Amino acid sequence: MTTQTQILRPASYISGQWHVNVDGQTLVDAVYGRPVAVISSEGVDFAGALAYGRKAGAALRKMTFHTRARALKALGLYLMERKEEYYALNLLTGATRRDGWVDIEGGIGTLLSYSSMARRELPDERFLPEGKVETLGRAGTFVARHLLVPREGVAVQINAFNFPVWGMLEKLAPAFIAGMPSLVKPAPQTAYLTERVVRDIIESGLLPEGALQLVIGEPGDLLDHVREQDMVAFTGSAATAAKLKVHPNIIAHSVPFNAEADSLNASVLGLTVTPDSPEFMLYVKEVAREITGKAGQKCTAIRRAIVPSGLVEAVTEALRKELGKVTLGDPARDDVRMGALVSVEQRDRVRQTLEELGKEARVVIGGGAESELLGGDREKGAFLDPTVLLCDSPLTATAPHELEAFGPVATLLPYDSLDDAITLARMGRGSLVGSVITHDRAEATELVLGLASTHGRILVLNRDDAKESTGHGSPLPALLHGGPGRAGGGAELGGISGVKHHMNKVAVQADPTTLAAITREFVPGGEVREDVIHPFRKSFDEIQVGDSLLTHRRTVTEADIVNFAGLTGDHFYAHVDEIGAREGIFGKRVAHGYFLISAAAGMFVSPAPGPVLANYGLENLRFVEPVGIGDTIRTRLTCKRKIRKDLRPDDKQPTGVVEWHSEITNQNDELVATYDILTLVVRARDSFDPPAQSGGEGAAQA
Amino acid sequence: MTTQTQILRPASYISGQWHVNVDGQTLVDAVYGRPVAVISSEGVDFAGALAYGRKAGAALRKMTFHTRARALKALGLYLMERKEEYYALNLLTGATRRDGWVDIEGGIGTLLSYSSMARRELPDERFLPEGKVETLGRAGTFVARHLLVPREGVAVQINAFNFPVWGMLEKLAPAFIAGMPSLVKPAPQTAYLTERVVRDIIESGLLPEGALQLVIGEPGDLLDHVREQDMVAFTGSAATAAKLKVHPNIIAHSVPFNAEADSLNASVLGLTVTPDSPEFMLYVKEVAREITGKAGQKCTAIRRAIVPSGLVEAVTEALRKELGKVTLGDPARDDVRMGALVSVEQRDRVRQTLEELGKEARVVIGGGAESELLGGDREKGAFLDPTVLLCDSPLTATAPHELEAFGPVATLLPYDSLDDAITLARMGRGSLVGSVITHDRAEATELVLGLASTHGRILVLNRDDAKESTGHGSPLPALLHGGPGRAGGGAELGGISGVKHHMNKVAVQADPTTLAAITREFVPGGEVREDVIHPFRKSFDEIQVGDSLLTHRRTVTEADIVNFAGLTGDHFYAHVDEIGAREGIFGKRVAHGYFLISAAAGMFVSPAPGPVLANYGLENLRFVEPVGIGDTIRTRLTCKRKIRKDLRPDDKQPTGVVEWHSEITNQNDELVATYDILTLVVRARDSFDPPAQSGGEGAAQA
Repeated sequence: MTTQTQILRPASYISGQWHVNVDGQTLVDAVYGRPVAVISSEGVDFAGALAYGRKAGAALRKMTFHTRARALKALGLYLMERKEEYYALNLLTGATRRDGWVDIEGGIGTLLSYSSMARRELPDERFLPEGKVETLGRAGTFVARHLLVPREGVAVQINAFNFPVWGMLEKLAPAFIAGMPSLVKPAPQTAYLTERVVRDIIESGLLPEGALQLVIGEPGDLLDHVREQDMVAFTGSAATAAKLKVHPNIIAHSVPFNAEADSLNASVLGLTVTPDSPEFMLYVKEVAREITGKAGQKCTAIRRAIVPSGLVEAVTEALRKELGKVTLGDPARDDVRMGALVSVEQRDRVRQTLEELGKEARVVIGGGAESELLGGDREKGAFLDPTVLLCDSPLTATAPHELEAFGPVATLLPYDSLDDAITLARMGRGSLVGSVITHDRAEATELVLGLASTHGRILVLNRDDAKESTGHGSPLPALLHGGPGRAGGGAELGGISGVKHHMNKVAVQADPTTLAAITREFVPGGEVREDVIHPFRKSFDEIQVGDSLLTHRRTVTEADIVNFAGLTGDHFYAHVDEIGAREGIFGKRVAHGYFLISAAAGMFVSPAPGPVLANYGLENLRFVEPVGIGDTIRTRLTCKRKIRKDLRPDDKQPTGVVEWHSEITNQNDELVATYDILTLVVRARDSFDPPAQSGGEGAAQA
Repeated sequence: MTTQTQILRPASYISGQWHVNVDGQTLVDAVYGRPVAVISSEGVDFAGALAYGRKAGAALRKMTFHTRARALKALGLYLMERKEEYYALNLLTGATRRDGWVDIEGGIGTLLSYSSMARRELPDERFLPEGKVETLGRAGTFVARHLLVPREGVAVQINAFNFPVWGMLEKLAPAFIAGMPSLVKPAPQTAYLTERVVRDIIESGLLPEGALQLVIGEPGDLLDHVREQDMVAFTGSAATAAKLKVHPNIIAHSVPFNAEADSLNASVLGLTVTPDSPEFMLYVKEVAREITGKAGQKCTAIRRAIVPSGLVEAVTEALRKELGKVTLGDPARDDVRMGALVSVEQRDRVRQTLEELGKEARVVIGGGAESELLGGDREKGAFLDPTVLLCDSPLTATAPHELEAFGPVATLLPYDSLDDAITLARMGRGSLVGSVITHDRAEATELVLGLASTHGRILVLNRDDAKESTGHGSPLPALLHGGPGRAGGGAELGGISGVKHHMNKVAVQADPTTLAAITREFVPGGEVREDVIHPFRKSFDEIQVGDSLLTHRRTVTEADIVNFAGLTGDHFYAHVDEIGAREGIFGKRVAHGYFLISAAAGMFVSPAPGPVLANYGLENLRFVEPVGIGDTIRTRLTCKRKIRKDLRPDDKQPTGVVEWHSEITNQNDELVATYDILTLVVRARDSFDPPAQSGGEGAAQA
């Protein structure tokens, strides 16, 4: 039983103030039709809210990616402690606890995922150099690089009713990491749950003031006030998206508009699958889960089940059995598997669409409201039985590919060849997600490549990945969420890509030294700084980009090559076989490439204990010219960039990563090898004490 | 003198046919006002053209990135041989030969650049795996990767009048590399030059039929027929962009619409510059060049010269002197530096805008049509003197930041602090390009970061890069061309990014073996293939992704470490100093990281001459766990991917690149190091003959 008694008055949070209206639209719960909340945005100053947000953005942009990431993590943990409050309100929306898990813990998990992706993949800086340095002139005095910087406006986020928590947090997380404040406008039906979470976020004080504003109720003249540096992200119906996207103000100021809209997602059962292969039941269960999860109110749900003609009957029977186990009623009850739709209006809309679909397909499972209800009100609650239709001529039909029944409804589409299956999937004219259920690699490849240009995500499900599969309907923080065409043409999530959507890309052209100063990364050809202090004797904080060491020289001898071959066991002919080597591409015996980088380390390493703790990796190694017997090499090592590592409270010895650019040259100053070395370096000089005196032994004895 | 006598009848090229109209709009040349061409798209079937293009796309998508790149290169060379034909027509547009160079050779150069970028940076495949493999489950049975595949529609390209050749080719090149056919609609005024080039392209037969269609004249109902997989790229006025972008059909099908529109580009002279520093004259010459080049008809031209208040007078005088040297007249004459605007209508439009600007700024140089003309017709030709205005209160003015006089016009805006300079530049509300002229690194950094969120490209110009600088106004194939806000919010070029704009991104989730089959790259955790034949004994064509070798074992001894230190000279304490090592992060002496990868090579290398010619590089090396004295290591080497190299006609021994994934483990099967090796491998077994018998010596003696 739902326990709500008091009527909620969710408030907007605008320009640092809670804005409550006593009167407004009354919302009722989805299960019993009892009044739940009154909402209204009457009196909200939208122009002021945007101006406030833009101003707040300055504080946000002063934080680094890592500082923002740590704030998100703290926020995620803070909200997780309060999740039961959200689960309670979730039941009023008609959703079961399991449905709520996707919304609530999935949403909070997205904050945590973005926090760790940002700390792992982004530098601890305020902007992001992207791609390689481009050399624009032969002499190397004119170079360029792309930078990504935060847009200096507000991210306006207009969300759908079905995921009041995840919908907000999955847009907020990448915007916040990028350094953009959010102004969130949830759909009215479930806005009280969004507001409950926002209230906790504001109370937590974990985000800088202005990083999050909330509009409960109608958006008023909000879009009249967005400007060049703002952006709008919308999730909802294609009709509303089309209306908002052409707003004259959005067009006049080229405001980026990202849409996630309708999507008639398809799931294809492979031709190679037989009723007794594991993939058969994986398919049936996946389709059933997508029909019933959130009562089918998911933009990623399977709407079209594309099934080999010969298996349609078997699939229908298995689905009937599977869906027969689904109990309907009050989602607060433990024995209920599927709750209500969000409102009776929504239920009626689905029924109407079902009627339209009925003109080109027939109902084979469900179709009405005949199942026994375990709690809930048959009249005032928004219940609908899981429903499956069958379309006999899907290649010539229109309705199943065009009409989205946003409820527990899917249509079976029989097919005879993989080409037909691909054609059917593509008739959806662009989808957020598709799935392919087969264990045959060739079939999977053909289907995936056939679907690729019209889908944002494709799941291949089979016996090998089923255990760990997150399912057809689940967007993941690391993967693109969006799709071309009718899916809206938008792009959300996708890991750090989702952060980059909130940034402006700019190509910067300059001389190498200036470019290095701007990007804070060494640019080959730029000025270097040589010091009497060996760079490996400096702490992370003392090292500066451009610090450089030119080593002594070493002549590579036949003995070096022979000894290296003996020690490593690498007797490749190019090194040790005079006959083979002479006939090979170098025309003579040459030193092992790994000998060169090892000897280079021998030239630049500073042997005694010091701030450089370890060389833990290497990138971009290229052997450019061979080194033969008698050649003399030396190395230039230059600090390329510094990557501050995330500090943990329990870090005894804070460290950072220093990337060094190394160039080995020969006696003619020709480059023979180039690479980048990753070292772990102690943070501040005063945090580096030789272990003998302070930590080490003493600590071990304590 | 221009030599055109016959009236041209440039034709549309649609659905594989030339479509000529005898009647239509008559165009006159820009210099004498004589009739040049008659154009009309009367009778063109636009729906048919799009359908034809979409069908032709299939052939294009069957080609690999490299095949397409080779076609572009051949095309570039073919057109370069015919460039004089284009230069002749270029004069009729009012442009000088130097202006034409940017358009004609700049355009052809863009084809060549995209050809080489594609062969260097893209695999020889039909699609592009992007980013890393994402592990989605702890056990590693569920993984994902993003793929980019060509959009399966037509790239509709609507171009501006000012660059009839470059404008077409800079959009065509990335679309073609991506695998998308183009339908080009040049602006009427200069369409005859575009048509001349298209005629050569079609005659060359170097692009597959359907890869390029051309509309000369009005676009009719073209946009009524674009669909989900098509896209539209537009260059022109913001007003037209706004009109086209909201076309109901474009909205209904979420057709990507890319706009390059008006842009009031700024160039900032630094506060640290003095009249006698080299940067002063660099600035003056850059502004003068941008005012006069193409008679100022460039979307990237400097419109706003932001100058320290104290230098305004000096800059004005220097500009007056510089612009005084500019001779106007018939661009066919060698002594003419600046030609005409494209038409008298365009000239009149610029004059009108000058009048509007005059309300908030005053003309200090030029302003009329008073210079002596060296050829050309004063009345019928579209001549206008280089003009500079000065706005005394730019922070409160509107016109200089809002009105684009698309001709030889710029406005001086005085400033007092860097903050003001940044504010002024940003008042353009989004620009394609900005420039900063200073030799002071700190000033450059502050200005660039201040301008970054509102610009698509920023040039820092000073004494160090001036010699090689390509200038404020030049978009480059490798760098982003586009800008936020009033610049249209679009993105073109930018190297391979420009190719990706024409592709659909899809996240593919599967088990590792299936993902490897789809992406044709090995996925860790996926099935490997072990063979009695050593993988290094197979030719490039015989090797398959997933071919794997598990080596014998080797115990790492104290002698190994000591010998390696002695041989390489790397006596870092973690390897050779028992006391230091015990107190260090590993707590004991450990093997050198480079010893491990060298010993691994010793375990998997096949010593005798064979198809693997060299290990030329290494990527992604990470030392995961230390290896101590007595630990026993072994290596698994697996073919990760094959990269076909571009073959040249003179290749004696065709090779390809094979990337191997290497994992070194210890006696407990713990990963101690992971990395990827790049090897050069001979192409087909029959192309590999031991050098002694065929090439090598014999060839050298010949």
